[in-house]
Amino acid sequence: MGIDPNRSTLFIQSEVPAIDELTFFFAMLLPFNRVMRNPTLKDEIRDKGLGEEYSFGFPLYAVGQCADILTFRPALVPVGEDQLPHLEMTREVARRFNQIYCGVDSHTEDKDYVARGGVFPIIEPKLGRVRRLVGTGGPGPSGELLKMSKSLNNAIFLSDDADAVQKKVMGMYTDPKRLRATDPGTVENNPLWIFHETFNPDQAWITEQQAAYRAGKVGDVVIKRKLVEVLNTLIEPIRARRKQFEARPDDVLDALRSGTRRANVLAEETLTLAKRAMKQDYFSRSLGIGG
Amino acid sequence: MGIDPNRSTLFIQSEVPAIDELTFFFAMLLPFNRVMRNPTLKDEIRDKGLGEEYSFGFPLYAVGQCADILTFRPALVPVGEDQLPHLEMTREVARRFNQIYCGVDSHTEDKDYVARGGVFPIIEPKLGRVRRLVGTGGPGPSGELLKMSKSLNNAIFLSDDADAVQKKVMGMYTDPKRLRATDPGTVENNPLWIFHETFNPDQAWITEQQAAYRAGKVGDVVIKRKLVEVLNTLIEPIRARRKQFEARPDDVLDALRSGTRRANVLAEETLTLAKRAMKQDYFSRSLGIGG
Repeated sequence: MGIDPNRSTLFIQSEVPAIDELTFFFAMLLPFNRVMRNPTLKDEIRDKGLGEEYSFGFPLYAVGQCADILTFRPALVPVGEDQLPHLEMTREVARRFNQIYCGVDSHTEDKDYVARGGVFPIIEPKLGRVRRLVGTGGPGPSGELLKMSKSLNNAIFLSDDADAVQKKVMGMYTDPKRLRATDPGTVENNPLWIFHETFNPDQAWITEQQAAYRAGKVGDVVIKRKLVEVLNTLIEPIRARRKQFEARPDDVLDALRSGTRRANVLAEETLTLAKRAMKQDYFSRSLGIGG
Repeated sequence: MGIDPNRSTLFIQSEVPAIDELTFFFAMLLPFNRVMRNPTLKDEIRDKGLGEEYSFGFPLYAVGQCADILTFRPALVPVGEDQLPHLEMTREVARRFNQIYCGVDSHTEDKDYVARGGVFPIIEPKLGRVRRLVGTGGPGPSGELLKMSKSLNNAIFLSDDADAVQKKVMGMYTDPKRLRATDPGTVENNPLWIFHETFNPDQAWITEQQAAYRAGKVGDVVIKRKLVEVLNTLIEPIRARRKQFEARPDDVLDALRSGTRRANVLAEETLTLAKRAMKQDYFSRSLGIGG
């Protein structure tokens, strides 16, 4: 995608044990019902039809996401809007930790927590232009279009070849009330048009074709064929770079290995600060290293 | 208590990160409802009157206990009987891990799991003579005597001085229907007698005095005074050793430090085996170290 592993730290999460250790600490600060009420969690249980059939790891993962973030003490977190409830929980747990273990006053402004001695910043979300990309399928049980997700089987992958992209786009959910190309079509809440608005750089084409679509003067097939072209143009260079890297797995592993090493340095530093604040730094304390 | 740190490994749990990492893996193998239905957990919520007010860490701890045990791949686990449901959950998670990731057949006998390639043994509980020591207080909401527990404030501590032991024993819950020393007393379900039966080595005295108690010929006070004597005789040498160690905190830390080092060697080995079985040993695999 063009992310430079020398500038951005790419790492394997399960090779950073401090994330799991901080998850345990944060779990003690989050009321059980607060975690279970998390709307992202409830939406996922509903959209995936999990019912009562999910592992304990499923809600634990929501707590783990707080640690995924706070382990690296960032200021901004780039997310889709469906992740905002997780970020709110992350902000809560950071405030609570800072108040309980660092003695930061509960009336402190979010931006001042670290300056007043807190270990964890109160992070801010950074939403992109596209707040949440919908999938290629129809609406879920809530009546709303579902987000694109591997587990919902409604995703176009960056690894898909040109044929797979074509097949997925040609089978895409559009306006269910439109039976013939001459029926007036609806542009709103229509994945086909959401995709064009997201990925097609030709705004003039979109405006013109949306008018035709609304008037029943252009069929779905034409609009879909154009989208196949747009997506394959976008994905082709990514596909090519992927092929290059697939032929050099050791380079990928080297980048991950050095990224994981860098991540662990910061993660262990955060863990040390957290344990010191919690007075759980038993060994370093006695050695006179602790605060 | 006489546990030799050179023979028994004493360590600080929060300094063994592999426990937290294995907890995450096990959480994915345990159905959410299975964890929440755990009777030990439900009893604790009831006995402590937690209602809906508990942290996510509270049920997480039950999963963590599976990892506390399996990290060290033991055969036997010494416990009180209130912990048996936790051990049953530990056995389940070990079976499931071995079946899913090590391909051990689900009809395998518990004792054969490791021999057939499983990472984790199916542990057996080891109950002592006293399966669960009751506290000094009366029954809980269930009508049964509560176990001795720091958080229920019904415990006699090994660190209590002779006066504290006396005060706790003299204020102990006994037979609530007995108002005078001349009333016939009940021995069954009476913490005073449970304590004598547990700690008083003089079985002849117990038999004789229980008969007198039942007949209303001896008061609670006499039996309690005897218990104070019994407990202080038991605890005094422990108290004395505690004092010695309190004056040498560095020796205690050294023992814990070397114990924690030993614990981590085994814990990291278990983690490596588990990750290899799960094919999550990305780095060692590529280095040709993995299996």
